[in-house]
Amino acid sequence: MADYSYKYYNITFPQQYVAHVEINRADKMNAFFEAMWVELSQVFNHLSQDPSVRAIVLSGAGDKAFTAGLDVKAASEGFLMDKETDNDPARKAAHLRRHITPFQDCISAVERCEKPVIVVMHGFSLGLAIDLSTAADVRVCARDARFAVKEVDIGIAADIGTLSRLPKVVGNFGWVKEVALSARIFGADEALRVGFVNSVYDSKQDAVRGAVEVATLMASKSPVAVQGTKEILNWSRDHSVQDGLRYTSVWNSAALQTKDVSSALLSGIQKRTPTFEKL
Amino acid sequence: MADYSYKYYNITFPQQYVAHVEINRADKMNAFFEAMWVELSQVFNHLSQDPSVRAIVLSGAGDKAFTAGLDVKAASEGFLMDKETDNDPARKAAHLRRHITPFQDCISAVERCEKPVIVVMHGFSLGLAIDLSTAADVRVCARDARFAVKEVDIGIAADIGTLSRLPKVVGNFGWVKEVALSARIFGADEALRVGFVNSVYDSKQDAVRGAVEVATLMASKSPVAVQGTKEILNWSRDHSVQDGLRYTSVWNSAALQTKDVSSALLSGIQKRTPTFEKL
Amino acid sequence: MADYSYKYYNITFPQQYVAHVEINRADKMNAFFEAMWVELSQVFNHLSQDPSVRAIVLSGAGDKAFTAGLDVKAASEGFLMDKETDNDPARKAAHLRRHITPFQDCISAVERCEKPVIVVMHGFSLGLAIDLSTAADVRVCARDARFAVKEVDIGIAADIGTLSRLPKVVGNFGWVKEVALSARIFGADEALRVGFVNSVYDSKQDAVRGAVEVATLMASKSPVAVQGTKEILNWSRDHSVQDGLRYTSVWNSAALQTKDVSSALLSGIQKRTPTFEKL
Amino acid sequence: MADYSYKYYNITFPQQYVAHVEINRADKMNAFFEAMWVELSQVFNHLSQDPSVRAIVLSGAGDKAFTAGLDVKAASEGFLMDKETDNDPARKAAHLRRHITPFQDCISAVERCEKPVIVVMHGFSLGLAIDLSTAADVRVCARDARFAVKEVDIGIAADIGTLSRLPKVVGNFGWVKEVALSARIFGADEALRVGFVNSVYDSKQDAVRGAVEVATLMASKSPVAVQGTKEILNWSRDHSVQDGLRYTSVWNSAALQTKDVSSALLSGIQKRTPTFEKL
Amino acid sequence: MADYSYKYYNITFPQQYVAHVEINRADKMNAFFEAMWVELSQVFNHLSQDPSVRAIVLSGAGDKAFTAGLDVKAASEGFLMDKETDNDPARKAAHLRRHITPFQDCISAVERCEKPVIVVMHGFSLGLAIDLSTAADVRVCARDARFAVKEVDIGIAADIGTLSRLPKVVGNFGWVKEVALSARIFGADEALRVGFVNSVYDSKQDAVRGAVEVATLMASKSPVAVQGTKEILNWSRDHSVQDGLRYTSVWNSAALQTKDVSSALLSGIQKRTPTFEKL
Amino acid sequence: MADYSYKYYNITFPQQYVAHVEINRADKMNAFFEAMWVELSQVFNHLSQDPSVRAIVLSGAGDKAFTAGLDVKAASEGFLMDKETDNDPARKAAHLRRHITPFQDCISAVERCEKPVIVVMHGFSLGLAIDLSTAADVRVCARDARFAVKEVDIGIAADIGTLSRLPKVVGNFGWVKEVALSARIFGADEALRVGFVNSVYDSKQDAVRGAVEVATLMASKSPVAVQGTKEILNWSRDHSVQDGLRYTSVWNSAALQTKDVSSALLSGIQKRTPTFEKL
Repeated sequence: MADYSYKYYNITFPQQYVAHVEINRADKMNAFFEAMWVELSQVFNHLSQDPSVRAIVLSGAGDKAFTAGLDVKAASEGFLMDKETDNDPARKAAHLRRHITPFQDCISAVERCEKPVIVVMHGFSLGLAIDLSTAADVRVCARDARFAVKEVDIGIAADIGTLSRLPKVVGNFGWVKEVALSARIFGADEALRVGFVNSVYDSKQDAVRGAVEVATLMASKSPVAVQGTKEILNWSRDHSVQDGLRYTSVWNSAALQTKDVSSALLSGIQKRTPTFEKL
Repeated sequence: MADYSYKYYNITFPQQYVAHVEINRADKMNAFFEAMWVELSQVFNHLSQDPSVRAIVLSGAGDKAFTAGLDVKAASEGFLMDKETDNDPARKAAHLRRHITPFQDCISAVERCEKPVIVVMHGFSLGLAIDLSTAADVRVCARDARFAVKEVDIGIAADIGTLSRLPKVVGNFGWVKEVALSARIFGADEALRVGFVNSVYDSKQDAVRGAVEVATLMASKSPVAVQGTKEILNWSRDHSVQDGLRYTSVWNSAALQTKDVSSALLSGIQKRTPTFEKL
Repeated sequence: MADYSYKYYNITFPQQYVAHVEINRADKMNAFFEAMWVELSQVFNHLSQDPSVRAIVLSGAGDKAFTAGLDVKAASEGFLMDKETDNDPARKAAHLRRHITPFQDCISAVERCEKPVIVVMHGFSLGLAIDLSTAADVRVCARDARFAVKEVDIGIAADIGTLSRLPKVVGNFGWVKEVALSARIFGADEALRVGFVNSVYDSKQDAVRGAVEVATLMASKSPVAVQGTKEILNWSRDHSVQDGLRYTSVWNSAALQTKDVSSALLSGIQKRTPTFEKL
Repeated sequence: MADYSYKYYNITFPQQYVAHVEINRADKMNAFFEAMWVELSQVFNHLSQDPSVRAIVLSGAGDKAFTAGLDVKAASEGFLMDKETDNDPARKAAHLRRHITPFQDCISAVERCEKPVIVVMHGFSLGLAIDLSTAADVRVCARDARFAVKEVDIGIAADIGTLSRLPKVVGNFGWVKEVALSARIFGADEALRVGFVNSVYDSKQDAVRGAVEVATLMASKSPVAVQGTKEILNWSRDHSVQDGLRYTSVWNSAALQTKDVSSALLSGIQKRTPTFEKL
Repeated sequence: MADYSYKYYNITFPQQYVAHVEINRADKMNAFFEAMWVELSQVFNHLSQDPSVRAIVLSGAGDKAFTAGLDVKAASEGFLMDKETDNDPARKAAHLRRHITPFQDCISAVERCEKPVIVVMHGFSLGLAIDLSTAADVRVCARDARFAVKEVDIGIAADIGTLSRLPKVVGNFGWVKEVALSARIFGADEALRVGFVNSVYDSKQDAVRGAVEVATLMASKSPVAVQGTKEILNWSRDHSVQDGLRYTSVWNSAALQTKDVSSALLSGIQKRTPTFEKL
Repeated sequence: MADYSYKYYNITFPQQYVAHVEINRADKMNAFFEAMWVELSQVFNHLSQDPSVRAIVLSGAGDKAFTAGLDVKAASEGFLMDKETDNDPARKAAHLRRHITPFQDCISAVERCEKPVIVVMHGFSLGLAIDLSTAADVRVCARDARFAVKEVDIGIAADIGTLSRLPKVVGNFGWVKEVALSARIFGADEALRVGFVNSVYDSKQDAVRGAVEVATLMASKSPVAVQGTKEILNWSRDHSVQDGLRYTSVWNSAALQTKDVSSALLSGIQKRTPTFEKL
């Protein structure tokens, strides 16, 4: 097994082929600063290419929060603050873009990860929590989750993905607009009703357990099929149906040559669990 | 009336202007093989241009299944199997594309059909059932329907439309991902809750009856208006709002010259049912 | 305060920074004719740039209807009727496009308005009511609301925005197709269930009051953040996630230089309500 | 004939159906300030819908310049200068967008104009001259023309269309980049060689005469056909071939019903010049 | 060898792997009517999948014309003429679309053909000649070629592909606009200068010989590489660079597994001509 | 000055603000292997953010070649060869994608670099030379340059950018197709004629000198304006004109707040060379 020692994340393997990534800054409600999102992308790039991983659960350590979002104190001392104080606004803008783009890119590593990612939210799940969760494939939560697209409360339009991804995750544009324009808190039931989360569990522990079960189920399927499905769904979201169909046929012209198809069919006939080679 | 004798489909006309297409391979749970999807496209191309048809219901014969999906046995002897066994993977890929593209195209005939299509699902509605239903305009089901995006269970990413269309049919991307990545079965209530189906009926018979009613209602409207509405909705799904508005104005610059507008208005004033010419 | 005297709209300011636009043709169920939609765009262009306005509520005067839609009588004497009667169909088409495009553009003024717009629907909310409401950001309604995508009933495909925007507002494409192809009436509960409206209130008065509350909440936030959020959400709806992220970073490279961020952060620390400069 | 008295433009009709718009500020080398581009859009909106106009020539008065571009003095006192001096950069950005967008929109009126526009450039043709000319359909010039994408020389990226349209007008992206990034002057021969202009004439007078000839030729054709051709070419530039084909078929489904087709065919047989009704 | 007997086309095989398709209606200047374009698509679909064909030359029989375009007489008796004379313009529009779309589709068969197509034009090459040639990959001509985007001369906007494809074939939008809006004739030298044709030959015979040489060269390369190159170039034309790169990587993930790579490399080392298996 | 010691590239600064990157593997005709393209992206990411660099020249060391392209020997031992020999074709495809995507991304670093890049080609400029050069902004060459889109000669479709970028760099799609489908060599004159290069110089030394001059000119302009111009041109290439205009206005809403505008204007009045702050 590869070395999965990271500074801000605990990585464990609760089931064969299933990785569990835990954000590990519970004393600060898992609030994010730059080194953390850089490491996040390293973790997911690593998992993406590790053949012994087929599905991933992402959660936050501690009882209080999945993540309280951006560590505002660190941000206001860091990238929100242009040290070259006599820069004109155009130069400040260039510096900001040079920070925002890699930040976005780090969070997009979750979406780019070839394996399905199930995110478990509990307690405070604010701001960056939403950006991050919309880059995952499936969202579940504990009953105590408190969500908010919090950014307007600190004077900014969310810039790490929420505004681009949330309307494509939740098919209720009026609701998306309302929560994004008001920053109001919403809870687990509302999240379930509008389709922001797939399931609500009684506790964080139950939610993690449930997420691991779903991940284990996905990990038991052909990795060729599962990874292709994730990729094609994400591509199709951003393209016309016709472009989606074409991309699918090109993708599958290689993928259908896998031995997994015959393994799966044979196992079906023989009423046994198929095994698939690594990918 | 044109000749509607087809080998794998029963076509009847339960109401004026309403056609009912029944997949007719009940003994094999309406599982599809190549000749069937080729004929399916012929049926829908025919109905698309038949001026005596204004709305279409599609269902499956028998009690057990709308369709169990691809006839896997036929497929594994057919297009999934490259007979030129010493072809290299690039050549096999070309052969696969040459099969997948026309297969997709046959199912897309349902979407391209100018008349609204209401699909009725019951019993097993697996794999290709989902691909096919997402190409229809409205989906309803019987309470006994058992759905699954089944493809990952046989080692493949669904390639006939589900992955491109389902996220645009159901506005809950997390749910789409979960069912597509896990192949788990879901039932009628869940299908209704997430918006995959419009209505659930107690039995297949009730569902067909309900679908015919909806079709009859649509068939009673101006065919110029109804066909334009279907076309513009499908176009708009794949384009920006601005492009959708422009396309609408160009489309309607001809369509508004129909006599149906004055017929409809006059009938409204006279409190009688309007009649519209064929299209 | 700027002069907000308009012929077909009452404009009031129920709260600081909140404008209330009331369609003022109650005796005709607020049915629209050309001068009204032209004025509508003037009203919203005006509000869009007025720094003393931060959120807008739009409703209809009278008890009976938000709006019964197009004033069909006026339309059939007006733009639906080509006076140059011996024009050939191609020339009639050109004339129709020259009318439809500016008509669409007037309604799009609601979407282009830089401030959030919350629309309150009650009673008859038919045809153009749907076009108009989908250009707003948030939709709420009174329990007595009666909705219909009514256009097929008068022989036309809705051309002022419903068919392009409704599928991006309500993520249930089957439902959108059904109501658009059948013109059937639906009520407040169904509208809430499918996500067409965010909330249902017992009466129009309650609904207006509720909308003003939501608007007041939005107006209390940084206008830089709120206006950026609206803009980026609308842009992202029409583009890929990758394009959305890039646009966000370019937008925010100027927006993050606002004093609102430090005002908001400081107010947070000091537990007091922040104040923001005009925009 | 409609009234074509404008303050900054002379409008004449050198041939039947042909309008000649002359920028009329020769003493300032036809440099543009806000009132001029607002009026420009009014002129072209007017011509666009005037049925007695079928093709348009645009040129600049005087010997020295088609236009020296933006009147920098006016601009630096006007929209480039935010009078609310204590606005923060985010608010200044909002004010700038509120100026740039309508400015772009005025120049786009030339592109949106339904009739073909042939622009004649001579002498200094700098900055805004390029923006403006790329919104026209055909560009010709006099031998003395001196072109430059001048904006980087005053510290800005061209924002009124050059950077978006020039690469779609001249299919030599390296050349476009070089002239846009260096602001270097180029002459008539180079403009012809790279395809920026269609023809070079010995003098401005010859160029105007040549442009009027081309316009007259276009104006002698069916206006239904010519206006449709302009529209479809512009649409196709911005869309895939497949989308272009579909748009064409929808457009032509009305346009082919014109009497111009039979007029043209009959005139062909009878060897006489066809006449077409107004549009 | 498969049977290549067609009614309106002579098909010969001047070199190994090279097919020559000749339009065979010289007595009518190869003017097209419906049965001809339907057969054209059959010919190219056939060649597309025939493994013994790797490159195709398309030319016209006789001395006078590649093709004079649409057989206007047949068209005006056929699809341009709606026999249901009392149809309203909306219904006529629907009938026209039902004819234009399959017509476009037939010509697009040349573009969809997986093998490169080199078209040879001589003499009159008008109207449909341009539509057809822009669907090919490479255009060459004889010195006597007379080209025109002729459609506006018969009162219509070209609807079979010229307006969508020509601006993407010739990167000089002003020239495209001028010839499309004026229908003026242009000759071989101008066609070469603007990049509409790749080469000009002294006679039709020389041009065919030259085209066969180019085709033979292409046919000598790996068919996996050549067909992939055509496909990716066409896809990239219609998508962003980023989408093009992604599509390329997915395509090549199968294509690079071909034995052709090692054959080509080995032949290079051994200084001999590689041979490639059929595709 | 930052440390610019790299293994495969010499980086010098021939003029203020101008960097010269030289590919440094002359003994192998500058052929590329994996470590080289990884380092290339590091070099350009570094230059992109270095405020003391405003324009970049890229050339190849030695007399013989800009670059002979991919080091085929290294490639066939490396990423073209899947060491896990019993992987099925689907798994091999996944491995190939995992190599192609980062390879593409390294070359795209040249395009993403915020500063203009002028590439100088001489001698053999094959395969990857074309991919690389199309990611630059301006291409120039020495008279002895020998170009080829060489990939089909080794059995592959070019996958590192040529097929996606070349058609957007050279507006002559027939020529692009011909050279890409035949792999034929072309020289400097042809490259100039079709617009692949901007200029041809007598020798490599002259070409480098010329490129440095162009770079120096660009570097003398406002970096805010130059970098904005590059960015907007690249964005516009991939979007509609309308999207390009909007992006421009958002970009410039920050960029126009630069002090460079007043510096440039003032210097113009004072007839002296402006100086601009770093970016």
